[in-house]
Amino acid sequence: MNNIIKVGLLGCGTVGTGVLKVLSQNMDEITPRVGAKLVVSHVLVRNLDKKREYADAVKFTDNINDILEDPEIKIVIELLGGLHPAREYMIQAMQAGKNIVTANKDVVAQFGKDMFDTAEANNVDFMFEASVAGGIPIITPLKQCLTANKITEVIGIVNGTTNYMLTKMSEENASYDAVLKDAQEKGYAEADPTADVEGLDAARKTAILASIAFNNRVSLNKVSTEGITHITPQDIAYAKELGYTIKLLSIAREDEKGIDVRVHPALLPQNHPLAFVRNEFNAIFVRGNVVGDTMFYGKGAGQLPTASAVVADVIDVARDIVKNRYGRIRCTCYEHKKFCPIEKTTSSYYVRLLVDDQPGVLGAIAMAFGETGVSLSSVIQKRKVNKAAEIVAITHKVEEAKIRKAEELLNKLPAVDKICNVIRVQDTDEQEG
Amino acid sequence: MNNIIKVGLLGCGTVGTGVLKVLSQNMDEITPRVGAKLVVSHVLVRNLDKKREYADAVKFTDNINDILEDPEIKIVIELLGGLHPAREYMIQAMQAGKNIVTANKDVVAQFGKDMFDTAEANNVDFMFEASVAGGIPIITPLKQCLTANKITEVIGIVNGTTNYMLTKMSEENASYDAVLKDAQEKGYAEADPTADVEGLDAARKTAILASIAFNNRVSLNKVSTEGITHITPQDIAYAKELGYTIKLLSIAREDEKGIDVRVHPALLPQNHPLAFVRNEFNAIFVRGNVVGDTMFYGKGAGQLPTASAVVADVIDVARDIVKNRYGRIRCTCYEHKKFCPIEKTTSSYYVRLLVDDQPGVLGAIAMAFGETGVSLSSVIQKRKVNKAAEIVAITHKVEEAKIRKAEELLNKLPAVDKICNVIRVQDTDEQEG
Repeated sequence: MNNIIKVGLLGCGTVGTGVLKVLSQNMDEITPRVGAKLVVSHVLVRNLDKKREYADAVKFTDNINDILEDPEIKIVIELLGGLHPAREYMIQAMQAGKNIVTANKDVVAQFGKDMFDTAEANNVDFMFEASVAGGIPIITPLKQCLTANKITEVIGIVNGTTNYMLTKMSEENASYDAVLKDAQEKGYAEADPTADVEGLDAARKTAILASIAFNNRVSLNKVSTEGITHITPQDIAYAKELGYTIKLLSIAREDEKGIDVRVHPALLPQNHPLAFVRNEFNAIFVRGNVVGDTMFYGKGAGQLPTASAVVADVIDVARDIVKNRYGRIRCTCYEHKKFCPIEKTTSSYYVRLLVDDQPGVLGAIAMAFGETGVSLSSVIQKRKVNKAAEIVAITHKVEEAKIRKAEELLNKLPAVDKICNVIRVQDTDEQEG
Repeated sequence: MNNIIKVGLLGCGTVGTGVLKVLSQNMDEITPRVGAKLVVSHVLVRNLDKKREYADAVKFTDNINDILEDPEIKIVIELLGGLHPAREYMIQAMQAGKNIVTANKDVVAQFGKDMFDTAEANNVDFMFEASVAGGIPIITPLKQCLTANKITEVIGIVNGTTNYMLTKMSEENASYDAVLKDAQEKGYAEADPTADVEGLDAARKTAILASIAFNNRVSLNKVSTEGITHITPQDIAYAKELGYTIKLLSIAREDEKGIDVRVHPALLPQNHPLAFVRNEFNAIFVRGNVVGDTMFYGKGAGQLPTASAVVADVIDVARDIVKNRYGRIRCTCYEHKKFCPIEKTTSSYYVRLLVDDQPGVLGAIAMAFGETGVSLSSVIQKRKVNKAAEIVAITHKVEEAKIRKAEELLNKLPAVDKICNVIRVQDTDEQEG
């Protein structure tokens, strides 16, 4: 194989090192698949003195121009993370005629349109499989394999940190604080876990997935986002009793009310394919009007799974370079659909509350729900907490606005001490044939 | 959209009608994705008098030349099924410069090389996503999304009929004969169920998956094949007690002993991702040396799921036609690896036998296993059957040749009435990091 395709790499942290490792260790597999040898010629780093692995033939530089101005570099892999200067470097690289492969969900979620416009103007590819769900192929399946479908629903477990935490809470009956500490010790959660536990990381991925699934740009501010910090072992135990498991879900739906995108914890029926996704694994459930229900499962983060997606994108681009073809993968957001505001979305709800332990309270509560048009599928009195009684109610499907109204009303009832938690229930609808 | 791409369809049975339905009902979704309008101009059928749905503007013909000789037809969808004349028609169509999309696992498994050679010689595409696992994207993920990996294992539930039957046997404690009848009544099993229940259908899909995963042609006769006809509710019940569920698995592995391809029922740990795949659903578990474990799940058969895969392939080809690009997807079988004969494969085994109910029998049996080098992880005496005692033994991992030897020896023991069943146990190995 005489043909060599030169690659520039921006950033050499965990994933960057993983990319160098994969290209080196699997070279014998990859070269015939491409029809050319992939060679990382330059790596942009901040610290030139640091010793690096799998990088014998690589030139390290702290000057982006060494990569931008090298006409032999056809593909630039961006693994700097964060918005800046990642966005600017990618734009400059595309303007210099280089194809981009990135794992940067921030830039894709926030500046996706800019990226694609620049790619199109310069006839290069902009690839980002690694930005959502790490090693799991999901961007290509949505853009290429499920194109016969009108996608109606994409529901994912796309944040490994929170899924690890919820799995531990569920299986080991541990508290939120204990599992967070454990996740931090194991390296699954960062010192500041906000982006994960508040759902922000999942929200970015949801924006990306929804944009592709519905052929419509979905910006981050459209994603209604709620994290898992308020989930207690008690909620998990009650959910289990009722046949559910609690997961942080990324939800993107489209129906006649518009596009509905949100991230929040939800009670998921134990027989739902996503309910089996444990620990740091991710999975994305896709419903199409032709294929029915499908699911894509694997590791959503980590050095090698993420490198797997990055290198696959590089190979995809390189195969086209070998054949002198450019700009195959285009932006697919050509629709301008309406969005469904969160108040108009419908769901069943799990409501846990503490009430005075006295006759007639259940009735008063049911009446408060009823007054706001919320119908209950079950109300169960659970344990006593000090002098109060704990009640768990599950509602039928109802508009979000009504459940908020019901909360207000309940809060005013003298017999209600506290609404401990309100969590959505993700029902398994029957799919249409 | 002025651009029109004409498509010829061979066969208008269940899936063919599904393809017409999808192209008609989802046209508003599909046209902008392609950048052109897909129009099925001709359909080859045997019976011209039959009334057809979704086919107002279609010309029906019983003459293949109407399609082969129409220069405007750029894509031919083959849904005739069976080897002949499907193979010949596809070759002729490619020679006439037409791209092929097929769901025909028989032709792909048996004449894959011919097909690809012809495609390459004529600079056209040969696409076959629908030939394995219906609507589940698996060919594209293997050929495109997981290319950074050396694939070490592909394990699938790729036959919906048998998975439906085993699920019913497991969940409803029903007999093989009863669930077969039920499956036939529901249309999941054919009047002659041989191809499904004897594993032949799964074997074809295994040959195709292995060929792609290992970049090495795997012909059908390399796939060691065993069906589910000998599985009893008793085996399923014992498996469940031991923490396993019985599934018909398609297994393709590669290690230093070579490529190992087989179809057989196996005891699968209940926490394996494939164990949750119920009824007519399919799933394919792929292990790569970079990505780790991934899984692809969905409906493996049926009119619309299969049409989803067929139409996605058509869209893929059509997108290239729009850009004047031809022959993107090539044969990827360029290796010539050795195969591991079934006798050299290793597995744990579940062995159920009836023995004389007398002291010392367990010891004699353990000794017979021991003499052939088979070490047992557990031997449990179960219920009495008439005067005999039923024993269930689970072995440690051992070469297939040794378990066959042990069977011979056990059969000669006077105390052994009968070896009721020997079923492999698919252990969940720890994956390498």
